[in-house]
Amino acid sequence: MPPIVLVLNGPNLNLLGTREPATYGHETLADVAALCGRSAQQLGLKVEFRQTNHEGELLDWIHGARARCAGIVINPAAWTHTSVALRDALVASEVPVIEVHLSNVHAREAFRHHSFVSPVAKAVLAGFGSHGYHLALEHFSHTLKGCA
Amino acid sequence: MPPIVLVLNGPNLNLLGTREPATYGHETLADVAALCGRSAQQLGLKVEFRQTNHEGELLDWIHGARARCAGIVINPAAWTHTSVALRDALVASEVPVIEVHLSNVHAREAFRHHSFVSPVAKAVLAGFGSHGYHLALEHFSHTLKGCA
Amino acid sequence: MPPIVLVLNGPNLNLLGTREPATYGHETLADVAALCGRSAQQLGLKVEFRQTNHEGELLDWIHGARARCAGIVINPAAWTHTSVALRDALVASEVPVIEVHLSNVHAREAFRHHSFVSPVAKAVLAGFGSHGYHLALEHFSHTLKGCA
Amino acid sequence: MPPIVLVLNGPNLNLLGTREPATYGHETLADVAALCGRSAQQLGLKVEFRQTNHEGELLDWIHGARARCAGIVINPAAWTHTSVALRDALVASEVPVIEVHLSNVHAREAFRHHSFVSPVAKAVLAGFGSHGYHLALEHFSHTLKGCA
Amino acid sequence: MPPIVLVLNGPNLNLLGTREPATYGHETLADVAALCGRSAQQLGLKVEFRQTNHEGELLDWIHGARARCAGIVINPAAWTHTSVALRDALVASEVPVIEVHLSNVHAREAFRHHSFVSPVAKAVLAGFGSHGYHLALEHFSHTLKGCA
Amino acid sequence: MPPIVLVLNGPNLNLLGTREPATYGHETLADVAALCGRSAQQLGLKVEFRQTNHEGELLDWIHGARARCAGIVINPAAWTHTSVALRDALVASEVPVIEVHLSNVHAREAFRHHSFVSPVAKAVLAGFGSHGYHLALEHFSHTLKGCA
Amino acid sequence: MPPIVLVLNGPNLNLLGTREPATYGHETLADVAALCGRSAQQLGLKVEFRQTNHEGELLDWIHGARARCAGIVINPAAWTHTSVALRDALVASEVPVIEVHLSNVHAREAFRHHSFVSPVAKAVLAGFGSHGYHLALEHFSHTLKGCA
Amino acid sequence: MPPIVLVLNGPNLNLLGTREPATYGHETLADVAALCGRSAQQLGLKVEFRQTNHEGELLDWIHGARARCAGIVINPAAWTHTSVALRDALVASEVPVIEVHLSNVHAREAFRHHSFVSPVAKAVLAGFGSHGYHLALEHFSHTLKGCA
Amino acid sequence: MPPIVLVLNGPNLNLLGTREPATYGHETLADVAALCGRSAQQLGLKVEFRQTNHEGELLDWIHGARARCAGIVINPAAWTHTSVALRDALVASEVPVIEVHLSNVHAREAFRHHSFVSPVAKAVLAGFGSHGYHLALEHFSHTLKGCA
Amino acid sequence: MPPIVLVLNGPNLNLLGTREPATYGHETLADVAALCGRSAQQLGLKVEFRQTNHEGELLDWIHGARARCAGIVINPAAWTHTSVALRDALVASEVPVIEVHLSNVHAREAFRHHSFVSPVAKAVLAGFGSHGYHLALEHFSHTLKGCA
Amino acid sequence: MPPIVLVLNGPNLNLLGTREPATYGHETLADVAALCGRSAQQLGLKVEFRQTNHEGELLDWIHGARARCAGIVINPAAWTHTSVALRDALVASEVPVIEVHLSNVHAREAFRHHSFVSPVAKAVLAGFGSHGYHLALEHFSHTLKGCA
Amino acid sequence: MPPIVLVLNGPNLNLLGTREPATYGHETLADVAALCGRSAQQLGLKVEFRQTNHEGELLDWIHGARARCAGIVINPAAWTHTSVALRDALVASEVPVIEVHLSNVHAREAFRHHSFVSPVAKAVLAGFGSHGYHLALEHFSHTLKGCA
Repeated sequence: MPPIVLVLNGPNLNLLGTREPATYGHETLADVAALCGRSAQQLGLKVEFRQTNHEGELLDWIHGARARCAGIVINPAAWTHTSVALRDALVASEVPVIEVHLSNVHAREAFRHHSFVSPVAKAVLAGFGSHGYHLALEHFSHTLKGCA
Repeated sequence: MPPIVLVLNGPNLNLLGTREPATYGHETLADVAALCGRSAQQLGLKVEFRQTNHEGELLDWIHGARARCAGIVINPAAWTHTSVALRDALVASEVPVIEVHLSNVHAREAFRHHSFVSPVAKAVLAGFGSHGYHLALEHFSHTLKGCA
Repeated sequence: MPPIVLVLNGPNLNLLGTREPATYGHETLADVAALCGRSAQQLGLKVEFRQTNHEGELLDWIHGARARCAGIVINPAAWTHTSVALRDALVASEVPVIEVHLSNVHAREAFRHHSFVSPVAKAVLAGFGSHGYHLALEHFSHTLKGCA
Repeated sequence: MPPIVLVLNGPNLNLLGTREPATYGHETLADVAALCGRSAQQLGLKVEFRQTNHEGELLDWIHGARARCAGIVINPAAWTHTSVALRDALVASEVPVIEVHLSNVHAREAFRHHSFVSPVAKAVLAGFGSHGYHLALEHFSHTLKGCA
Repeated sequence: MPPIVLVLNGPNLNLLGTREPATYGHETLADVAALCGRSAQQLGLKVEFRQTNHEGELLDWIHGARARCAGIVINPAAWTHTSVALRDALVASEVPVIEVHLSNVHAREAFRHHSFVSPVAKAVLAGFGSHGYHLALEHFSHTLKGCA
Repeated sequence: MPPIVLVLNGPNLNLLGTREPATYGHETLADVAALCGRSAQQLGLKVEFRQTNHEGELLDWIHGARARCAGIVINPAAWTHTSVALRDALVASEVPVIEVHLSNVHAREAFRHHSFVSPVAKAVLAGFGSHGYHLALEHFSHTLKGCA
Repeated sequence: MPPIVLVLNGPNLNLLGTREPATYGHETLADVAALCGRSAQQLGLKVEFRQTNHEGELLDWIHGARARCAGIVINPAAWTHTSVALRDALVASEVPVIEVHLSNVHAREAFRHHSFVSPVAKAVLAGFGSHGYHLALEHFSHTLKGCA
Repeated sequence: MPPIVLVLNGPNLNLLGTREPATYGHETLADVAALCGRSAQQLGLKVEFRQTNHEGELLDWIHGARARCAGIVINPAAWTHTSVALRDALVASEVPVIEVHLSNVHAREAFRHHSFVSPVAKAVLAGFGSHGYHLALEHFSHTLKGCA
Repeated sequence: MPPIVLVLNGPNLNLLGTREPATYGHETLADVAALCGRSAQQLGLKVEFRQTNHEGELLDWIHGARARCAGIVINPAAWTHTSVALRDALVASEVPVIEVHLSNVHAREAFRHHSFVSPVAKAVLAGFGSHGYHLALEHFSHTLKGCA
Repeated sequence: MPPIVLVLNGPNLNLLGTREPATYGHETLADVAALCGRSAQQLGLKVEFRQTNHEGELLDWIHGARARCAGIVINPAAWTHTSVALRDALVASEVPVIEVHLSNVHAREAFRHHSFVSPVAKAVLAGFGSHGYHLALEHFSHTLKGCA
Repeated sequence: MPPIVLVLNGPNLNLLGTREPATYGHETLADVAALCGRSAQQLGLKVEFRQTNHEGELLDWIHGARARCAGIVINPAAWTHTSVALRDALVASEVPVIEVHLSNVHAREAFRHHSFVSPVAKAVLAGFGSHGYHLALEHFSHTLKGCA
Repeated sequence: MPPIVLVLNGPNLNLLGTREPATYGHETLADVAALCGRSAQQLGLKVEFRQTNHEGELLDWIHGARARCAGIVINPAAWTHTSVALRDALVASEVPVIEVHLSNVHAREAFRHHSFVSPVAKAVLAGFGSHGYHLALEHFSHTLKGCA
């Protein structure tokens, strides 16, 4: 059975594609989920793709990954900058984490430059659009094959 | 049909009137809801009045206002100072927002002087007690009539 | 005789309507004065409306309000951020103060986010355009009737 | 009937004992609950012991303690450092609060040195492990007997 | 002819005695002027006592002290904390300056702890009430006699 | 022979009970010493109770605890916030330390929120009044019995 | 008729030449005015040269330049660092501004390193002595000829 | 019997007059003591004049002033900026305090601009040389006569 | 002819593989170059791979990419945090930039958390080891095919 | 022989005219060199005009100016904000320095507001475009004639 | 008679050799004293070697060095970071001072990076272990021979 | 063959002796090189002495010391405060480093108080003039003999 990678999306990402299309494009979260499904199949992974606006639900999902998932790909959205609980849950899960942002957060407001997640993540990427999810999955596939 | 204005209340506001009456008076949140109802009728608006202690629920309500409501009046209470997710949801809704605080937050603790909501709101008022909700509604009525 | 509310305007507001009309609109300070006059009549108040570019003159006017006026509505403009003397004068007047800003100062340069006036005001509003003067007057009328 | 003390546990504490046992030991949250039960019996108190990963649920529980509980013992975990809503709820409850941390937070990352809860708590303790819950309960018992 | 000491008072001090008498007492600025007159006579000095709410007027008075006065006693009030122009004028006058505050500014708001005047003054005193003016005059008398 | 716990008290604590009784109560330091004596007897410990206003004396006492005492309970009072020497001495002693404060220092002036001692202590408590000494001793007794 | 350039001087500059001649030289403000007159004649400009110690007067002059003057050369002196009103007036005038300082402010006290004027000026120069006024006028002449 | 005023001097002041005479003059601490003696006699006070390099000794002296002395004049020297223990002792003494500095500390290094003593003192003076001790005593005499 | 991507490496990266192998592994910069070569071939790109310890040389290379290269992949190493010149060169080149770091810089010293490059890059990744170079190239390939 | 003025240009300025022409215009560095040549001839100066992307080369040039050049005009570009070595070299050269910036750096990113060069320069100008080089040369000519 | 160098050691250094031997080695303070004795003999100096945990005692020793000692070698330990009194005493002594630290304080906690002593010392060294005392003495010997 | 110690000198040090001789003396860098040569001979070391104004060259030299030199003595001059690349190169070299400064940098401008090198050096000295190079070499000799 292929290794499971949990792909988690934080608050407001359910609006993707309908919100500010000039900036974010017309791709919806369902499109991103489909993209992740295709990538997973091609890379020999199984992806579980979820989104929530409830921090507590996200924590529960992360707890559930413990000893079950090979990796977590997370786009924490606004919680990146405010949630110590998220950071603690990721550490407690003992699962390797890749933090993903659609936009280049370093080119936005100053309060988006600090992440509570980054120091406890294995790797971080930002600004690759939805392709960033694919790159994160590819890296898990790469490392699970013992390449890194 | 009259334009809909969503009136949202953040955490702990359900206790209004029972908590620290010497400071906040004896008016309950139900009283404020009734006040808003009367103002709406007089101003030709339809008001939906809600309160929650769950940030995720608040985000869902704001998402639901998109392309449906003419305005949002929000008293974000404690989340004013901590919730980037709230800020992002308000921007994503593309609905004009008026931020309301019962007390004059500028005369309280330093951590209450910063708001994540204010920079993305159309207007902000603080210190008017429950009358502030009326003034916010009146302003929506005023602008919807093309006066501003 | 109706209660007197002093409406004070700080530096550069004499240029209103002629300056950056794309941003501030074509309404002049005389228009705002007229608006306040109409609001006062409708609300049972007497308004004295003034503007100055001289801080000392503003202090003198505030001193003159002591024990004579029922309220001060002040748009301190640039002095909001720099004048401790203004703050001290308002406290010394012992008259309730509502601070008004035409634009939403929280969405502008960082140095406009701090106000020396707000902590000593009864209430603060920003971003309502000239309608904000009306709302402030309405609140004084509301409280003078014993409603708050 | 004995006085009720509400013992509240914040996010991720459900993982206690299974997470980083080298650091936190093998004691689970159920063990801590049992410990509190034994302490309560011995001290003449009734303990209600709860944990949640949902901030809103925690706020609801605190609201429910109002005028019903003699004290709150709270380990706010990550919310210690980020939740103004928690602080406001504790103040609104008008119940005396003791803040408890299993580890010595002052010897950890800098962002864990600030607590929104401490300034509104009656007392604070950190670094006593699960024994800290017992000490907090003992102090409530001590003060309820009129000793302090 | 006795040496002239200019005694200058900054904004809002004209309200002394009528404002917050519980805090500042019932002594008016005229009383302080009289006190300074009596002190001057007893100390062999000539005092010129003035107050203004106009910064420009204060600068003009300081310029006029150049090469004419033996000392300046100044209570800059709110301008203490904001006026670089005042500082520059005092330096330019080349007259020794004693800065006086009625209240102990160090026990008040943080923004009152910094003075632009103090680094260019000869000496500073705060918290002595109106007696502080007498002490400052006495020091000028003392040093003019060559005692320091 | 029972394990020795050194109970140390920093500057000004000799005035306890005579100073600001409205705030601190009428309990003197002798009363606290007696309380510790009774607690020690009941817990199977031997307590040495001392107070000094001389930092050097405190350092000497801490040095003397090395390899002789099972624990140090210290109320460092004002030195909490200023003495690196105290911190270094506690580390050098290699004795476990519990830091105790009578009042909740987190609810007082900002400069009292930082402690040089906390990061090198095993545990910290504040706001329990004199009962805090008892709780600290109880914790040493608890851990010496191998319970933690 | 030649283009008009308004040359404005802030507080205390009336003392130039009489104050600290070792540092600032013996040139008076009248000398600088004469220098500007000669430069203007040679450059095909008309200069209006003014100084004031009253901020309000300066604001009035700047307002008067609107749609009448081709440029403003301003030495704001102490107000450089404190006057938001000056900044707002310059923006409102919609006249290009060159900020001039006689001394190199960057080599003086730290509070002189920040200017409220610079971000809204077209260009800034400091440390050229009175020759800086000439250079500023020359630049206006240069750009009015369409060279830049 | 005349009221007792304790005059306290902090570290290194024993070197006065022998150290850096170009700056501090040739007056020794014995000279200052004699000056205080003469002032006391003339003002109807009894002065106790002391100096120490040991913080603990200073605390003991302050404790001893409690309920015995009418005032404390203190030149805390270097401890001004570092000793929270000194601040706490002065508060505990419940004796009115005047803080004195020979030099104008506001014109020296930045770390000398903050005083732990000033916020708990009745009044503060700096830069008057040894005459400052006389002025402080004179103020105690003035207030003990009921003049302030 | 395939699009050219310039792969640039900053100071000390020539030591890769020989330095701290326990941390960085045994892969040398030549290995990374070979990896990039293989990736480029597979992705339809042409890679130019370079390293320098001379900032000026790096600037020259970036200038040379202008209007010639389809992308720049840069690991700026230490210059990330200190070189404004690098930032300006990248902007001037008008070539899309992906910033790559072998290790997760967010989990290292605080001075490594700020990047002058990130705000002007299209995308950023860190912590993927040498695989990060492959992912960056893959992204360029992806976008050049019009997928993003 | 005419006095020599060294005109130095820092990193990336070689791209002038080709980079962002909408912002910086179409003037190249060669154009600026020619402009300086013409100005020099007209002003009775000899100009040496250079640009480098290598900090070490710039330092060497500055060292070479010692006791040979009458002035240095330097546009340090990005090194303005980062190079202490540049500052030290300019001081060591003992040649008067005028710092020039094409754009008004005070209206750009915050990190461009600090200059290591300004405090050791004789004078500074910014925002005059290439005409700023002419003004700097004119000032050297002016001062070499003994006019300042 | 050889010149006297006072070698002073601050708090907790009496524990040297017995405390954390893995880090600090087994050398005791007596060993360091002996080392200094041998160095002094070889270098033609007389050494007085002392340690204290009492700040006041250290100040007295420094005062006693005035006009008697040719140099002071001081390891201020924890007081390095907190004692303004120590700084003032060293300045007052008018004896050249070399500051010595056994360990490299710059590689330890941030609060150890600031020294009140360094700005008033002639020279500073850290990280040389006990050999640092020898190097400091050698430098005094070197300069006393007129070599520097 | 004796152990090799690399002695490296950063930017502008080539000017030593010719620059500001009143401050730095008349000793040139050649003199310092000769001094190091003599010290090396006497201490049984081989010294390689170099200076550069090019950061890249310095990095190359440090890389070349790897596994070849027994120690590095470095006076990084201005790069002390700005070069992360230098810090990284020194760590990568795995050679023990002693940082040397001719002057006491702690008594100079604030930006010279921070060193990127110190935290990765074995030891640091400043203020010993050229004798500091000798002391650093002596320490390497001392430790290579197994004395430390």
